[in-house]
Amino acid sequence: MVLDRSQLFLIDEKEGFGPTFSHLVSMMNYVRSTTLEAVEGLTIEELDFLIHDGANSIGMLLAHMAAVERIYQIVTFEKRDPTAEEEEALAAGLDLGEKGKAAFNGFPLEHYLADLEAEREDTYRKFGILSDDWLFEQTDWWWGEPGNNYFKWFHVFEDEINHRGQIRMIKKIHSLQKEHLAK
Amino acid sequence: MVLDRSQLFLIDEKEGFGPTFSHLVSMMNYVRSTTLEAVEGLTIEELDFLIHDGANSIGMLLAHMAAVERIYQIVTFEKRDPTAEEEEALAAGLDLGEKGKAAFNGFPLEHYLADLEAEREDTYRKFGILSDDWLFEQTDWWWGEPGNNYFKWFHVFEDEINHRGQIRMIKKIHSLQKEHLAK
Repeated sequence: MVLDRSQLFLIDEKEGFGPTFSHLVSMMNYVRSTTLEAVEGLTIEELDFLIHDGANSIGMLLAHMAAVERIYQIVTFEKRDPTAEEEEALAAGLDLGEKGKAAFNGFPLEHYLADLEAEREDTYRKFGILSDDWLFEQTDWWWGEPGNNYFKWFHVFEDEINHRGQIRMIKKIHSLQKEHLAK
Repeated sequence: MVLDRSQLFLIDEKEGFGPTFSHLVSMMNYVRSTTLEAVEGLTIEELDFLIHDGANSIGMLLAHMAAVERIYQIVTFEKRDPTAEEEEALAAGLDLGEKGKAAFNGFPLEHYLADLEAEREDTYRKFGILSDDWLFEQTDWWWGEPGNNYFKWFHVFEDEINHRGQIRMIKKIHSLQKEHLAK
């Protein structure tokens, strides 16, 4: 995904989207650009590195971002729960843990980025045909309280930022450990 | 700050704010609620813990959030650079590092939360008297590209999420170290 930096710091109208969708897309674009920047050039060893046994690797976190986006497509666009098959396919990415550690291991960066980009294309294709009203449709959500679609997609990028912050920390810890071992 | 969870998952109209400001405030409220949840009940020792020598403690990250909010008030509401005095007062919180480590040490949680709440009150007071048009005003921003006020305030909460993700990781590493030492 090539992002035009001249638009990156403007939360404003985006061609092909309703006015409020444009704001959401503006934020999602910026967040994704920072995720891509954080992982640029990482090797398989760096993607698989674990700061402790129960930790998530950077590769696992990238896989998680793609899985979260997919599950929100199902829940909000298709207004349904995932099928047993989808749940099975997404479990490693959503739940991470031991399952995630086994599933996301040994892959080059391009593997994760291709998944992220494919999900994002699907999301934006759908955003482009929905009207802004859709964003304010509510369902029961967490703790039995109402949640609207704008919040649900905000949460998708909010979760990405959370993990991007962690990716930056993992990189720092990894480089300190390598320095330490080299001494 | 007491947040009503019945509104927390709705990005929608908020009393006292313009329609687009309402969306921004909705997001800022949710983010803040998760920050408060992440730090709830932390002791001074937990707030000061460093996962490595050059790391940021949770206390430092909370101080950073308040300092970022203050500098964005100056830059966007007052449309000016900080004075030398303000720069000096905010440097430890903005830049962190050794200066931040020295400045934010030995304080109880309430100290950081009071600062965060005071800045947020100032921000919302001003948001409440601005019209939505203000959000789309542009200035030169990073890398000489344009940035609007909506983006600038998005960045304030985006940075908070980033560090909240790190706070969650620091807590996990700290508890693992304590378990390890207890063995």
